[in-house]
Amino acid sequence: MHPPVIILVRPQMGENIGAVARIMANFGLAEMRIVAPRDGWPNPQAIAMASGATHIIDDAKIFNTTAEAVADLQYISATTGRPRDMVKPCYDAVEGVIKCVTAYQSRMRVGLLFGPERTGLENEDLVLTDAIVTIPTSPEFPSLNLAQSVAVMLYQWVVSARTQTFKPPEAASPRASKEEVWNFLNHLEQALDKAGHFKSPDMKPKMLQNLQSPFLRANLTEQEVRTLFGVMASLTQAQKK
Amino acid sequence: MHPPVIILVRPQMGENIGAVARIMANFGLAEMRIVAPRDGWPNPQAIAMASGATHIIDDAKIFNTTAEAVADLQYISATTGRPRDMVKPCYDAVEGVIKCVTAYQSRMRVGLLFGPERTGLENEDLVLTDAIVTIPTSPEFPSLNLAQSVAVMLYQWVVSARTQTFKPPEAASPRASKEEVWNFLNHLEQALDKAGHFKSPDMKPKMLQNLQSPFLRANLTEQEVRTLFGVMASLTQAQKK
Repeated sequence: MHPPVIILVRPQMGENIGAVARIMANFGLAEMRIVAPRDGWPNPQAIAMASGATHIIDDAKIFNTTAEAVADLQYISATTGRPRDMVKPCYDAVEGVIKCVTAYQSRMRVGLLFGPERTGLENEDLVLTDAIVTIPTSPEFPSLNLAQSVAVMLYQWVVSARTQTFKPPEAASPRASKEEVWNFLNHLEQALDKAGHFKSPDMKPKMLQNLQSPFLRANLTEQEVRTLFGVMASLTQAQKK
Repeated sequence: MHPPVIILVRPQMGENIGAVARIMANFGLAEMRIVAPRDGWPNPQAIAMASGATHIIDDAKIFNTTAEAVADLQYISATTGRPRDMVKPCYDAVEGVIKCVTAYQSRMRVGLLFGPERTGLENEDLVLTDAIVTIPTSPEFPSLNLAQSVAVMLYQWVVSARTQTFKPPEAASPRASKEEVWNFLNHLEQALDKAGHFKSPDMKPKMLQNLQSPFLRANLTEQEVRTLFGVMASLTQAQKK
């Protein structure tokens, strides 16, 4: 079992990356991933603000896209201040972290996703996640500093992991990784492209999102992804005949 | 009723004071007090890091000593990473904040005390408090950034204040303010000085602390402080006869 992976999506300030490393070390975490850091990598400001948590900065992995950064994970929670018009479960921090801890105790690889300082996470990031968590801030001054958001989520993780009783995982096929699910969804998209399903290129992104949402929400197991591949193969074959 | 007052004792970095102002605004707090800020006041770095929460910086009150900063408060919780050999209740963050919320709901004026970045709170600060709260950090990397400590405590405050059911205050005399208790303890000290109680000047601080501790721990009501003054007056009179 691994503690949660922290994924910073397009962070802007090296100081914030360093402060996140420090708070990760404070709460006993080790694995940081960074998607497209604005000021490149390595970043001297990040090292300066890590206050000795340099092992986390040194070991941080850099990715070009959020999809690549979460590919091997099985449960991903995004922390964001803004409610989105998206079919994703939304939780407050206490509930949301309990979901994460339960996933972790069921031997899933869990990731906590945080967006860029000014703009927050985009819909294309959120579609990759299992749930959205909102920290209860004042409506007059809602915008938390990046490292403060991480601090609150990790503090809540430590508290919930200590008090949450372990529930054994269901006797089923292991949950599919994000990569396996997206591999299926990409194949499905290609098959639909070939079949001329997307008649208007303008409408394709929205149609695709509507199509992908239920699969992303369904917590598919590895077995179910295999089944879906089988179904798609049969349908494609039938079309050719 | 007022939300908790945040008291920063001898803070070193203006950046941290600013970050505390921001997180206070995030969680709907307004009242900041600062004891002997290292770099004087006002502090441009504090304003820069407050990210718009300048009303909190502008309204912050500056004090020379911790005792003055907490004089009008009735329940004070200190957040510190180090256990001290002191007769004070020690709580983890969840328990400690529930005590604060309960005090607040019983109409007490509540303060949360935070120490300087490097050294933490001194015993002379802690003696002024009702309880010590420790945030559960990793033993290998325990030292939290000042603003991160405030973030965790205020997040926990918001969560606990929402879930904690209100218990009506006991039908008793209102709790004495810190100033009233210290006023009594100072009179007691003077009376003992006159009576030649402290035979060795070297031993006086320790003797005094041992004497003060039970009174500070006892959650004295205003009525009880008046009673103690009466007792002291009678004894002093008796001595003179």
